[in-house]
Amino acid sequence: MPDISKRGAEAYSSPIRKLTPFADKAKQSGKKIFHLNIGQPDIKTPKEAIQKMQSTPVDVLAYSPSKGYLSLRKKITEYYQRYNVALDAEEILISTGASEGIFFTFLSCMDEGDEVIIPEPLYANYIGFAEYARCKVVPITSYIDNGFAMPTCEDFERKITPRTKAIMLCNPGNPTGCLYSEEALREIAAMVQKHNLFLIVDEVYREFCYDNQQYFSALHLEGLENNVIVLDSVSKRYSACGARIGMVVTRNKEVMRILTQFSEVRLSPPTFGQILTEYLVDTPQQYLDEVKEEYVKRRNLLFERLSKMEDVVCYRPGGAFYSFVQLPIDDCDRFCRWLLEEFSLDNKTVMLAPGSGFYATEGLGKQEVRIAYVLNADDLNQAMDCLEAALNTYPGRTELKKAR
Amino acid sequence: MPDISKRGAEAYSSPIRKLTPFADKAKQSGKKIFHLNIGQPDIKTPKEAIQKMQSTPVDVLAYSPSKGYLSLRKKITEYYQRYNVALDAEEILISTGASEGIFFTFLSCMDEGDEVIIPEPLYANYIGFAEYARCKVVPITSYIDNGFAMPTCEDFERKITPRTKAIMLCNPGNPTGCLYSEEALREIAAMVQKHNLFLIVDEVYREFCYDNQQYFSALHLEGLENNVIVLDSVSKRYSACGARIGMVVTRNKEVMRILTQFSEVRLSPPTFGQILTEYLVDTPQQYLDEVKEEYVKRRNLLFERLSKMEDVVCYRPGGAFYSFVQLPIDDCDRFCRWLLEEFSLDNKTVMLAPGSGFYATEGLGKQEVRIAYVLNADDLNQAMDCLEAALNTYPGRTELKKAR
Repeated sequence: MPDISKRGAEAYSSPIRKLTPFADKAKQSGKKIFHLNIGQPDIKTPKEAIQKMQSTPVDVLAYSPSKGYLSLRKKITEYYQRYNVALDAEEILISTGASEGIFFTFLSCMDEGDEVIIPEPLYANYIGFAEYARCKVVPITSYIDNGFAMPTCEDFERKITPRTKAIMLCNPGNPTGCLYSEEALREIAAMVQKHNLFLIVDEVYREFCYDNQQYFSALHLEGLENNVIVLDSVSKRYSACGARIGMVVTRNKEVMRILTQFSEVRLSPPTFGQILTEYLVDTPQQYLDEVKEEYVKRRNLLFERLSKMEDVVCYRPGGAFYSFVQLPIDDCDRFCRWLLEEFSLDNKTVMLAPGSGFYATEGLGKQEVRIAYVLNADDLNQAMDCLEAALNTYPGRTELKKAR
Repeated sequence: MPDISKRGAEAYSSPIRKLTPFADKAKQSGKKIFHLNIGQPDIKTPKEAIQKMQSTPVDVLAYSPSKGYLSLRKKITEYYQRYNVALDAEEILISTGASEGIFFTFLSCMDEGDEVIIPEPLYANYIGFAEYARCKVVPITSYIDNGFAMPTCEDFERKITPRTKAIMLCNPGNPTGCLYSEEALREIAAMVQKHNLFLIVDEVYREFCYDNQQYFSALHLEGLENNVIVLDSVSKRYSACGARIGMVVTRNKEVMRILTQFSEVRLSPPTFGQILTEYLVDTPQQYLDEVKEEYVKRRNLLFERLSKMEDVVCYRPGGAFYSFVQLPIDDCDRFCRWLLEEFSLDNKTVMLAPGSGFYATEGLGKQEVRIAYVLNADDLNQAMDCLEAALNTYPGRTELKKAR
């Protein structure tokens, strides 16, 4: 029997999905699980767009151009205009989810061993895509005591080496829910320019900015046209994760040329998802407003419940639909598994994502979990009942450690 | 401005799509182009499956499991039963087109610098995926004088090094249309076993076997359960290229575990494509029979026309819908571009894929082109009129060179 690859044997395993077998077992035993572990919203996808896609006559379900249909890319420029971002359709590449866009961006900007600096806790799959592309994620730790605010430029500069090619941010942040301010972004931008780096920003949660904060995109940064690459997606915005439609946006012509060339290898992004997306862009603002209102309600509820739990450290996230929370536990992996295997409250339990999986630095995040507030208020309340009861009975309950 | 990656600058460019700008210009000037350059059939996708997918209620367009929906994977086992291949749903991973499956297979079986031996001319994107995964395609040349038949085991063995991890085949072959016999496959299988290699077989053209030849799949090889990895897709079978649904099939549990882990990084394959595919599997055999009949008609027409052209070397392909043809020309890239830019017959021309792009060995294929017979008989006839006239007026017409 031939051996699998070493990189396969050593490959990073998704912290978000690795508890699935235990969850499956719990379900089989009849336990109800509240899934706060993944960013799969329960929000309905805009009905009209689905209907229009489903009424579109399709005779031959053909490949699209590798870069995506021109009509779609033009349509997306309309969406960006609402954010005062003027784009040409040629500055947009349609990818199979933002996921594929991350991979193509890494391939286009970095060679094997090149480094991308990313604040941690970070979206765990960045590490997986860096493994695909054989480049290196250099983490820069942010802390719960200031709500995982942007590290300082000095912090970043200490991490820069001759192999550094890019700084990558997620704004608003998955898994922290932190929304970076215009001021913080401008400081990073100046540093990026000084060191001649790429600035890769994952903006898939752009719509989810709370407390009347205005969204400031990396695409708003003047003079950084050749440095900025923005990753985007319809998955969260329109609750259309299964469409697998993302995009890479850059005004750097050379980067776009290479992205396009890499995209040709896989032929084309999914056709139905592209048809749907053209209609999704026309979704009335009311839909987005209502969704945002719903998430604010959930966030407030979550914050209120967590704040009342003894020895639980939390903050009010400014965006996205995640909160990263510190708990008085010995080990988050053990705790999350225990929740599925041992704990139940009225035959119900809650599934959380262990915090350690969101750090590239070994050993960090052991007392932390990511909570995705993707369920309605009633479910979320029940899930918090579970968490509260669980913390009171968990045998591995310990003192809280100082973040730094 | 930061530099793009070296691998980006040196990246392989798809020979199939690189003439597109010249084709666009020709179209803008009002010229009609017969596209024999890409494997995009004009055959209709099964109407019933499209309708059923479009009638499926979708409230929340959610992620699917990374490996694909279990119901779909079970359905696909039914399809394989028709070929007397008994599979468990766990032995199937749904990929975003066979394309993604090739990439995951390379990642799972090979490390950087590891080698996969592939007969050439080969499906050009294999080279692109090897670049994604930083492994090496080692070509083994096959020749037009025997219809690009399987190289001998001795030929393969001469290419084996300590870095060789796999032999890869495309059967029936893109771009050659060559159908490998059971006997040829059994010989390769014995050699693969002897050298403890993976045998990766791209079988996306499985339905397209002509002249009453029975299809023999690598999945039929007894004792090679841990060596064989089959790539499959609904793109060609059901003319559903835009669904972006492929699959990787292997009975090697360790390989499947690693494939699944790599697949989790990109979350999930497209949901609509998966729903469609569940219905596609129920397409009546009559559809496939009629499609095959249509391709046989086209193949025969193509062969007949080419055979009558002076100094054109061709053969009757046994499968798929491609023919690799030798022409009395100086340089296929120049000729294919000239067809678009300079030539026209009644304001029409034909687009072909230059043969050189299908060889990993530098310098081969200069007098060859790939012809995809994906157009109906009338269009194909007109395209052949164009080719015949073009060969008579092309300024770079030269003597035919011996293949070997």
